[in-house]
Amino acid sequence: MIAPASGFEREAFEAGLALIRRRYRAEHDPGLFERQRYLAGSDARRRAELQAALADPGIRAVFCARGGYGATRLLGQLAAGALGGPPKLLVGFSDITALHLWLQAHGRISIHGPVLTQLPRLGPAACARLFELLESPHPAAPLRGDATYVGGTAEGPLLGGNLSVVTRLLGTPFMPALDGAVLLLEDQGERPYRLDRMWTHLRLAGVFERVRGIALGSFTHCEEPEASYSSAEVLRELAQSVGLPCAAGFPVGHGEANEPVPLGARVRLEADSARLSFLEPAASAEG
Amino acid sequence: MIAPASGFEREAFEAGLALIRRRYRAEHDPGLFERQRYLAGSDARRRAELQAALADPGIRAVFCARGGYGATRLLGQLAAGALGGPPKLLVGFSDITALHLWLQAHGRISIHGPVLTQLPRLGPAACARLFELLESPHPAAPLRGDATYVGGTAEGPLLGGNLSVVTRLLGTPFMPALDGAVLLLEDQGERPYRLDRMWTHLRLAGVFERVRGIALGSFTHCEEPEASYSSAEVLRELAQSVGLPCAAGFPVGHGEANEPVPLGARVRLEADSARLSFLEPAASAEG
Repeated sequence: MIAPASGFEREAFEAGLALIRRRYRAEHDPGLFERQRYLAGSDARRRAELQAALADPGIRAVFCARGGYGATRLLGQLAAGALGGPPKLLVGFSDITALHLWLQAHGRISIHGPVLTQLPRLGPAACARLFELLESPHPAAPLRGDATYVGGTAEGPLLGGNLSVVTRLLGTPFMPALDGAVLLLEDQGERPYRLDRMWTHLRLAGVFERVRGIALGSFTHCEEPEASYSSAEVLRELAQSVGLPCAAGFPVGHGEANEPVPLGARVRLEADSARLSFLEPAASAEG
Repeated sequence: MIAPASGFEREAFEAGLALIRRRYRAEHDPGLFERQRYLAGSDARRRAELQAALADPGIRAVFCARGGYGATRLLGQLAAGALGGPPKLLVGFSDITALHLWLQAHGRISIHGPVLTQLPRLGPAACARLFELLESPHPAAPLRGDATYVGGTAEGPLLGGNLSVVTRLLGTPFMPALDGAVLLLEDQGERPYRLDRMWTHLRLAGVFERVRGIALGSFTHCEEPEASYSSAEVLRELAQSVGLPCAAGFPVGHGEANEPVPLGARVRLEADSARLSFLEPAASAEG
């Protein structure tokens, strides 16, 4: 268990930890309860904790306590050797997207899924699906969205995560090559003009010339107060202006559900039926 | 007068227009009152209006009605010939930063200064200083900030503007080379962790290895409710981690004052005395 981004409520952490401990032996450094403004302790502390977890040959998976903000601060000085140890699956979402992208830039698979402090709210069934994804030699069951923005089919590695954080790596060396990818995007608390601004950033940076399809997760608390338009309407129009296969409403992100999905693994997006199929297991792909 | 970004209150526009007309003949297309969600009409309308203004040899300066959001949407399809006409000074700030950066990428000077709808609040003296900057063959009077974050002196072209918008061009072909520049940054309504996230984006993209100094304008409504830390404290620490000469509190941006400054023109930042001197006039530099 690590805390590479913001601080969190200790109670939610303990409850999440209890769920993990039903199945695994879980360890954490007491330093993870440190606080420095909006961060779970200093950059040096969070970076050392992350690097130690990645390097330890006895650790099979790394769970992040919470997103928030702070993971991008670590990227500039992550030791090149941090990925030298045996592969292991990192689990998290939202701000943790920065670490996922860095891992995928190094060819790794990781799990876009619940952070530890979110697990209690999602409940035991969601935990069971997360454990299944971590352990199973078979690909996960397909996910269903609820809307087709642009029809068509796309196949490629699933890359992306939180829209805000994905855009924060544009123009940096920490973004994986997105060529041929199916782009996953979700966000929370960003008003429609901000979603538009971030989508436009992806467009100006040439991302939509490289990816093959777009799978949209939850966009929660993204409405403009008293507006006559919705964030979904804005996203649909942006997707249509791009023209790549795009389906929306996948249960991934900050909404009621946050189904775990393997980033860096191959998927097939069938936008007409809003279906996302997984072609590789997360676990065995990591050897 | 053009409206390349968001819609605006007609009353503020008329009041601003009256101030401009005390000195200049001012024209605008009636289409500028069109509205499309958060935009002042369609991309096609706003783009055509911008291109026509830039191409018209009878126009000496282009005032933007308002920022908001929408200028970045125009960048991808601005005609290469849009800058073929005689140089003229574009005036605006906030979202208009996207157009400034595009102009500076083409070697042009433009004016980071009030939008038309802001002029009535700033009053006649502020208008007079804007007109002076537009017309004078001499460099403008120096500006004074109110804090030194990192001492030292830097000289180079002044580039930048709104922090949010500057970061939205990272990794795109619309960002000017920032080598040797003094970077101007201001913002509004961005909480400290978001300022940190954007600053960190600039850092990860290598911007602070290219610029020579940093001049910070207003950061209004950037506080975290009930936090024990301020946005100024966070910005100071970020500046100190970069180590370039940096002074803050210049009267530029969304605050009480919004002094016009020539982007793309050479400046000298004396961070110890929080002084920003202009080495070139805006007007004559444009021939």
